[in-house]
Amino acid sequence: MGGDHGPPVVLPAVVRALGVLPDSVRFQLHGDEATIQAGLAKRPDILARCEIRHAERVIAMDEKPAQALRRGKGTSMWNAIEAIREGEAAAALSAGNTGALMAISRLILRMCGELERPALVASMPTPKGVTTFLDVGANVDCDAERLVEFAIMGEAFHRAAHGTPHPTVGLLNVGSEEMKGHEEVREAHRVLREGRIPLDYKGFVEGDDITRGRVDVIVTDGFSGNVALKSMEGAARFVTGELRAALTSGLAASLGAILARPALRKFRDRLSPPPAAPLLGLNGIVLKCHGGATERDFSQSIQVAVDLARSGFTAEIERNMRRLPDALAEHAVDGADAAQTGAAQGVQK
Amino acid sequence: MGGDHGPPVVLPAVVRALGVLPDSVRFQLHGDEATIQAGLAKRPDILARCEIRHAERVIAMDEKPAQALRRGKGTSMWNAIEAIREGEAAAALSAGNTGALMAISRLILRMCGELERPALVASMPTPKGVTTFLDVGANVDCDAERLVEFAIMGEAFHRAAHGTPHPTVGLLNVGSEEMKGHEEVREAHRVLREGRIPLDYKGFVEGDDITRGRVDVIVTDGFSGNVALKSMEGAARFVTGELRAALTSGLAASLGAILARPALRKFRDRLSPPPAAPLLGLNGIVLKCHGGATERDFSQSIQVAVDLARSGFTAEIERNMRRLPDALAEHAVDGADAAQTGAAQGVQK
Repeated sequence: MGGDHGPPVVLPAVVRALGVLPDSVRFQLHGDEATIQAGLAKRPDILARCEIRHAERVIAMDEKPAQALRRGKGTSMWNAIEAIREGEAAAALSAGNTGALMAISRLILRMCGELERPALVASMPTPKGVTTFLDVGANVDCDAERLVEFAIMGEAFHRAAHGTPHPTVGLLNVGSEEMKGHEEVREAHRVLREGRIPLDYKGFVEGDDITRGRVDVIVTDGFSGNVALKSMEGAARFVTGELRAALTSGLAASLGAILARPALRKFRDRLSPPPAAPLLGLNGIVLKCHGGATERDFSQSIQVAVDLARSGFTAEIERNMRRLPDALAEHAVDGADAAQTGAAQGVQK
Repeated sequence: MGGDHGPPVVLPAVVRALGVLPDSVRFQLHGDEATIQAGLAKRPDILARCEIRHAERVIAMDEKPAQALRRGKGTSMWNAIEAIREGEAAAALSAGNTGALMAISRLILRMCGELERPALVASMPTPKGVTTFLDVGANVDCDAERLVEFAIMGEAFHRAAHGTPHPTVGLLNVGSEEMKGHEEVREAHRVLREGRIPLDYKGFVEGDDITRGRVDVIVTDGFSGNVALKSMEGAARFVTGELRAALTSGLAASLGAILARPALRKFRDRLSPPPAAPLLGLNGIVLKCHGGATERDFSQSIQVAVDLARSGFTAEIERNMRRLPDALAEHAVDGADAAQTGAAQGVQK
């Protein structure tokens, strides 16, 4: 029921997705039963693969998370998340209110590990494919343990979503010799480098590596991640705006723009980020589709949800999360040794 | 002597700059006297406005800051900074080793206020002009006082460099309701909002405002600032790279690109950031020109140095810096009141 468009986008997206997904994939549609029935009336074949779960109410797009928690019970969003907890559905997808989705998911599914909030992932286009970049907003203050958790979750997500067997992982830091980054970043670097958590860790990366594709997964705190994501969106918008102005600034340029139009359109498509992002760190798979998602966006998001549900995604994360206390403890011992011997690097594996 | 090109770029840039600057502007040229004499041999009119200060040695581009401090005395860079301290020159400009320039400037000129390192400024293009964005790298860990210092310095720099009488100032934060930013950011927000420091403070801004031009000056810590700057550079590079690929992907597109070429060139020029950035917070004016600067870049940087030297730039910064302890103290009292009464906003002016 959520998003800027609601059922008129979601229902055709379901039809489109079921056209390509194997027969074993089935849907639960949470929302107003009459609306859903009417929207799919002409497609009894699709209705046969859907279970409609009627909900009297919906979470409004502008509702505050606290309010959504108080009065959310029985809404379509609440019911969808509850179905995950009850094992009745393998993944939940919503284009609704992000804050509410996060709060309700956290309450019903609980976090795995010790994160306060689910981490938000951005999938950034690169010349080679996609970089998984997290956290882009939810966890503003992060200690080293949080950063290592992001590495674990981001790596598992990247494998599940893109099929890369061993995604490479980097930790975002600042560049020059004089600036070696926060203590939290350096500590996470030492833990990841030790190798107790089996990730292909490549060390520090910088801001421009996010769209360069040097590693598959880039980890940072929610403050820097949100700033970087929005900065890049702004920069891309500025560049394309300037380009539009440049290409309409004279007759030759305008004619050139007309000739180049199909190429420019392909270029614009390349820039649009994938429409769905998982809320990572929950005991269950929940994806947020952006509010303005089109039918095609929503249908692609369904594909991602299915890929995640079929992968060993959550089990992998849990397995690595269980290794985390040991990795941190070993590191603490090494750190103490190192402080005494002054040879931190030599002592560590 | 510094930068990727040295005197073959610097000397013609001096010639170009002196062609447009008033007669009262004179240069000290620090470096190898024979090279400089030879480079300007055909222009006795220019030589008459330059004082050559011979230096036996130079700081290498790859020298570590600590090494530069130990063996820097008597190099051209060292002498140029000393001339600032002695009041023999009003501004220093170098295209040399950034880390060394920062370390030597800090040692010789000392910091004003309590910053550890000079703040680095990026001048970001926007549809309306330029946003002054700092710190983009030097001060990784920043408390609220540091952030307020950046606001003071950035505002004075923006006025001096761009002639805006009352630049507007924003504090970089993350967006959604659930994420309210670091405690440091919120604290700096409260101090700036109180109005004891006379800045036109507009409150929080987000990453995409950096290239949008919503405010003239955007303040953040050196970690987020460096990440944002590099991310934006990467995004712009990705966008233009994809564009190039799109425009050479077929005959019509290629023909279109040829027709649009002058417009695209104007577009590319618009994107290149100003070549010089001041090291803010020193007791004196020092500018860093990027190593690959062309003759035109270096000549523009000279203009910026002259503008800064002629403005009341450093005096303004000092004046506002002196207001800072009171502003912080008043805030601390208000904060204590607020904690008791639970009405922080009402108590503050």
